[in-house]
Amino acid sequence: MVKAGIIGSTGYAGSELVRLLMGHKDVEIVWYGSRSYIDKKYAEVYRNMFEIVDAVCMDDNMEELADQVDVIFTATPQGLCASLVNEEILSKVKIIDLSADFRLKDVKVYEEWYKLEHKAPQYLDEAVYGLCEVNREDVKKARIVANPGCYTTCSILTTRPLVAEGLIDPNTLIIDAKSGTSGAGRGAKLPNLFCEVNENMKAYGVATHRHTPEIEEQLSYACHKPVTINFTPHLVPMNRGILVTAYASLKPGTTDEEVRAVYKKYYDHEKFVRVLDEGECPETKWVEGSNYVDVNFKIDPRTNRIIMMGALDNLVKGAAGQAVQNMNLLFGFDEDEGLRQVPMFP
Amino acid sequence: MVKAGIIGSTGYAGSELVRLLMGHKDVEIVWYGSRSYIDKKYAEVYRNMFEIVDAVCMDDNMEELADQVDVIFTATPQGLCASLVNEEILSKVKIIDLSADFRLKDVKVYEEWYKLEHKAPQYLDEAVYGLCEVNREDVKKARIVANPGCYTTCSILTTRPLVAEGLIDPNTLIIDAKSGTSGAGRGAKLPNLFCEVNENMKAYGVATHRHTPEIEEQLSYACHKPVTINFTPHLVPMNRGILVTAYASLKPGTTDEEVRAVYKKYYDHEKFVRVLDEGECPETKWVEGSNYVDVNFKIDPRTNRIIMMGALDNLVKGAAGQAVQNMNLLFGFDEDEGLRQVPMFP
Amino acid sequence: MVKAGIIGSTGYAGSELVRLLMGHKDVEIVWYGSRSYIDKKYAEVYRNMFEIVDAVCMDDNMEELADQVDVIFTATPQGLCASLVNEEILSKVKIIDLSADFRLKDVKVYEEWYKLEHKAPQYLDEAVYGLCEVNREDVKKARIVANPGCYTTCSILTTRPLVAEGLIDPNTLIIDAKSGTSGAGRGAKLPNLFCEVNENMKAYGVATHRHTPEIEEQLSYACHKPVTINFTPHLVPMNRGILVTAYASLKPGTTDEEVRAVYKKYYDHEKFVRVLDEGECPETKWVEGSNYVDVNFKIDPRTNRIIMMGALDNLVKGAAGQAVQNMNLLFGFDEDEGLRQVPMFP
Amino acid sequence: MVKAGIIGSTGYAGSELVRLLMGHKDVEIVWYGSRSYIDKKYAEVYRNMFEIVDAVCMDDNMEELADQVDVIFTATPQGLCASLVNEEILSKVKIIDLSADFRLKDVKVYEEWYKLEHKAPQYLDEAVYGLCEVNREDVKKARIVANPGCYTTCSILTTRPLVAEGLIDPNTLIIDAKSGTSGAGRGAKLPNLFCEVNENMKAYGVATHRHTPEIEEQLSYACHKPVTINFTPHLVPMNRGILVTAYASLKPGTTDEEVRAVYKKYYDHEKFVRVLDEGECPETKWVEGSNYVDVNFKIDPRTNRIIMMGALDNLVKGAAGQAVQNMNLLFGFDEDEGLRQVPMFP
Repeated sequence: MVKAGIIGSTGYAGSELVRLLMGHKDVEIVWYGSRSYIDKKYAEVYRNMFEIVDAVCMDDNMEELADQVDVIFTATPQGLCASLVNEEILSKVKIIDLSADFRLKDVKVYEEWYKLEHKAPQYLDEAVYGLCEVNREDVKKARIVANPGCYTTCSILTTRPLVAEGLIDPNTLIIDAKSGTSGAGRGAKLPNLFCEVNENMKAYGVATHRHTPEIEEQLSYACHKPVTINFTPHLVPMNRGILVTAYASLKPGTTDEEVRAVYKKYYDHEKFVRVLDEGECPETKWVEGSNYVDVNFKIDPRTNRIIMMGALDNLVKGAAGQAVQNMNLLFGFDEDEGLRQVPMFP
Repeated sequence: MVKAGIIGSTGYAGSELVRLLMGHKDVEIVWYGSRSYIDKKYAEVYRNMFEIVDAVCMDDNMEELADQVDVIFTATPQGLCASLVNEEILSKVKIIDLSADFRLKDVKVYEEWYKLEHKAPQYLDEAVYGLCEVNREDVKKARIVANPGCYTTCSILTTRPLVAEGLIDPNTLIIDAKSGTSGAGRGAKLPNLFCEVNENMKAYGVATHRHTPEIEEQLSYACHKPVTINFTPHLVPMNRGILVTAYASLKPGTTDEEVRAVYKKYYDHEKFVRVLDEGECPETKWVEGSNYVDVNFKIDPRTNRIIMMGALDNLVKGAAGQAVQNMNLLFGFDEDEGLRQVPMFP
Repeated sequence: MVKAGIIGSTGYAGSELVRLLMGHKDVEIVWYGSRSYIDKKYAEVYRNMFEIVDAVCMDDNMEELADQVDVIFTATPQGLCASLVNEEILSKVKIIDLSADFRLKDVKVYEEWYKLEHKAPQYLDEAVYGLCEVNREDVKKARIVANPGCYTTCSILTTRPLVAEGLIDPNTLIIDAKSGTSGAGRGAKLPNLFCEVNENMKAYGVATHRHTPEIEEQLSYACHKPVTINFTPHLVPMNRGILVTAYASLKPGTTDEEVRAVYKKYYDHEKFVRVLDEGECPETKWVEGSNYVDVNFKIDPRTNRIIMMGALDNLVKGAAGQAVQNMNLLFGFDEDEGLRQVPMFP
Repeated sequence: MVKAGIIGSTGYAGSELVRLLMGHKDVEIVWYGSRSYIDKKYAEVYRNMFEIVDAVCMDDNMEELADQVDVIFTATPQGLCASLVNEEILSKVKIIDLSADFRLKDVKVYEEWYKLEHKAPQYLDEAVYGLCEVNREDVKKARIVANPGCYTTCSILTTRPLVAEGLIDPNTLIIDAKSGTSGAGRGAKLPNLFCEVNENMKAYGVATHRHTPEIEEQLSYACHKPVTINFTPHLVPMNRGILVTAYASLKPGTTDEEVRAVYKKYYDHEKFVRVLDEGECPETKWVEGSNYVDVNFKIDPRTNRIIMMGALDNLVKGAAGQAVQNMNLLFGFDEDEGLRQVPMFP
């Protein structure tokens, strides 16, 4: 039985980790970290856990935790994981960081977009970007896994095959993304109140959202050249779900069949990426509560652009589910252990 | 491996059965019945099942089905199950009927409230009312299980201990129930359109809703005398969830502790009924996607009434989950097999 | 042109007052009070007002305000209005208080339910309870109008005719009320976050909600004896709207026609109270954005109880709209001036 | 008093016309046309109109209507208006067509995108495209006004100034649009059920939506050359509101100030188009229920693209409100008569 500790277990991503790990046959959570709720029963913070989780919230002591567990998940704001991690800790436990601290290889890019000094740049090279479908083998050997962002997971899985195969010009890529509100976290902020979000929609972080360089970096690895894109996130009145609509110029003459063949090549053997049938547009509800990503595309011959679409549950494949998938790789479990939930509809 | 067939697999309750049974280690669905979608791929009707269910919808032939499966679930409108069932079928398979056909023992009451002639009244006596927490032992031996209604499950589990123990006067009972919209089914009807339901709330079926006699009959068994109640359902702009707020006159002098002790007596050993801590009001979101029912109460000393509250997911404990629980009893599986989902929040 | 000042103009009720008064031909808002946003442009706090309201938020100085305006609306938390008002102010302006400070005649009841010391009990007798349909003539002559609560307006208008005419026993009255989330205000609190409210429903303040004594007091005036009721509010995932479902024992032998005749007697001449046709249940969406209250009823002959139903928009007839209606009475305008909005659907 | 008739008064756009015209001081609706509800009381179809509209639904007889009214609104599916209109009718009344029949000048484009034979192509040249901010003077003299589509109104008003002034390359334009569900109409279709739409999001009509050629045609007039764009609509779980996010390559060297100056040049004198302050992103809720369009932009220097954003209420400025605005122009009323509603928040 692998022992797991969660730092930041009372955020939405943290609580989703708890939900998923409760159904994982080889893992036991032994530490529910939460600075805000130390000594409070976890089930009082998340009452869905009543009579399921009996533990009390602990503080965020990574050193102590390293002695007690085999894997630490950090589901905390940017900066915390980097400020806590050190060689001694890494010698004892695996770390799966759900924050952005180890996602970007270039510390300058991190500090520019996150407006934070990076406290552990020495581990940037070593950390593995935990997009399982891309870096599966490297993840297995990692000490630090940088769990990808929600928007980035959806954006990359939706567009990467065509970038990698040279079917689209990556510098024409425009990603228009829409997210449910759980992505904004459980902080008590006015813009996230029900009455402000319900019956409303807006773009935010236009041209400045931090997931932009993460997408660019990963796509640049796929095509071996620098990539600069437009990325615009939007807030949608729903709890869960990210939908990505991506636009790019298609290599002239490329057919539907060729594009479909590329998607199949990359994803036919991937359980969690479903390439939909022709003509079907991904819908967030069809993946809700599950680790699936649904992708599809449509070519517009009038403009010679391709419209690529992807949908996932931001708390599962976009956060906690992918973290569990990474953990499964790290510990040699079946990759879908604890992740076999059928999407819940309606 | 128990083989299961579902008649009416493309309604919301039917599809929820599919979702739950896909995660049940001892059951295999071999027949996806659906009159409306014969020969259509199930995953085209419910695209969450893409790459999960590969089957094609079949018609509703119960006789043929009886030769192929061990258990038949009927998730169909009232009247169908009663019109199909016969002795030969019952000699071969177990039937779990999610409709109301076998819930009421008195055929006259059925025909009066449902405005339907009952086609198989000879099985009314034999059929077992499948509220597992009440009739567990009888369910185990049944041929026909009448799976309770969604509102009734919530109403009965919330109020029955106090009725049974004589702490409330059952004829003062007023049940004000609120339901998400999935309870209205997947029929394409104007009142169920998004724009008609969203940002709206209403009562319906006032003083005439068909779950009324079902609640009355079950509560009358608990207190050994006739019970007549008021029951008012309401439609709420959410997908899933039923909340019951029930009011009754409390036996004079009854204390909080006595009431709590009664709830504990009935439910302490019941996995799926959670008696919340003092002061906590059940919320539908805390049980979403799971088979739990959360109950609690508050005494109002000013009026000497007690307010009892209960919450469940209408598609799980209120329909498909309870059907699986009944199946587990019928076949001797762990009662919670396939039903260990942690409620999903948010 | 009547000059109006609003203390607490940046809450949801305050902003609804602004919306309604902008469409009132005889009123001009000259003071947008808001402790939280002093010196900030009002249109930056409520961006629907961009290019409509050009003013800047002011503090809550009631004395200074009294010199500049003819009427002051206080849309603030309990206690503030009572702490500010004095004889000099009342000699200069009319006050319409949207808080509960002057709604209850008995200072002990106020202090018990609100856990606050009342700072101006000397005005309790004089203040007029501003339920226009009940106290129209008194409102016209008032200096202080106590604008009724949202739940209370709906509860009283729905039940009062039958209480007044002795058709129901008021001490059997049980009011189960459901409200949209704007009733909880614009404070940044975790329970009001989108993800906590959406797809969720719960009761709250069970047996302790402060609108209880207000309903009881007003109904006791109607039947000339003390009234004690049960009142349970619920939170519903919608922005606006209150639905009341009320239950009471009906005077034996009372017919549908008699009940309808009583409702007609009280409301046939009331523009803002609509008695729906037989069989129609009020829906909150059908009154949204307007000052209407829709009411109807159903007799249950099985239990000899009557179910009364009412729906209104909590921010309009439940708060700002009624405040404008009171202002119209105070200043001799047409009672529906500024309140002729057709309900918005969908 | 201008007399108005509405053909198709029981769709969502038709009912919004009724709501708006009830508040218009110079217009009286004398004909509520509705094929589906002939002889039914209008207030039974839209119960918000109870005690407000007393009329009964009539059939769609345009010839008879032409004798009784001054202006006919057709809020019907494509094809109907073109099939009914003739010279005699046009000699008697003004027609404001909310369908697409007269929006596209080229009959071949219409027939290709709408898969319909056009029954009155002889009026295509004469009909005026009723985007008031663009064609104000022509509308005043028109006999047939082609009321623009909801997506198109938002898309054109958001992008047209920069197209017209040559600041963006129109053939790089990508419009990603999101709409509330009322745009899908009041037909009882499965995909529009509450449980299918709620907590869900999807693209639809990708690369084939009929508003595409309408946007292209209007933008081509603005820049005097053919324009081909990408347009992708999405369905969002809210009742009302359209949000447009548009991307295009910016003329090298263009500054924020230059872009803002262009928007101001076009819209400073336009009541219904609000250019938001720098950094503010349009939100659909801030215009709900009103005739406003909010627009703004952000330049991304990294890609040298500009992101333009616009928001409107699809039933008001996107349909009925714009129709009333056109009517005001036709009859010489104040352009904002009947359209002074302050947006409703929340």
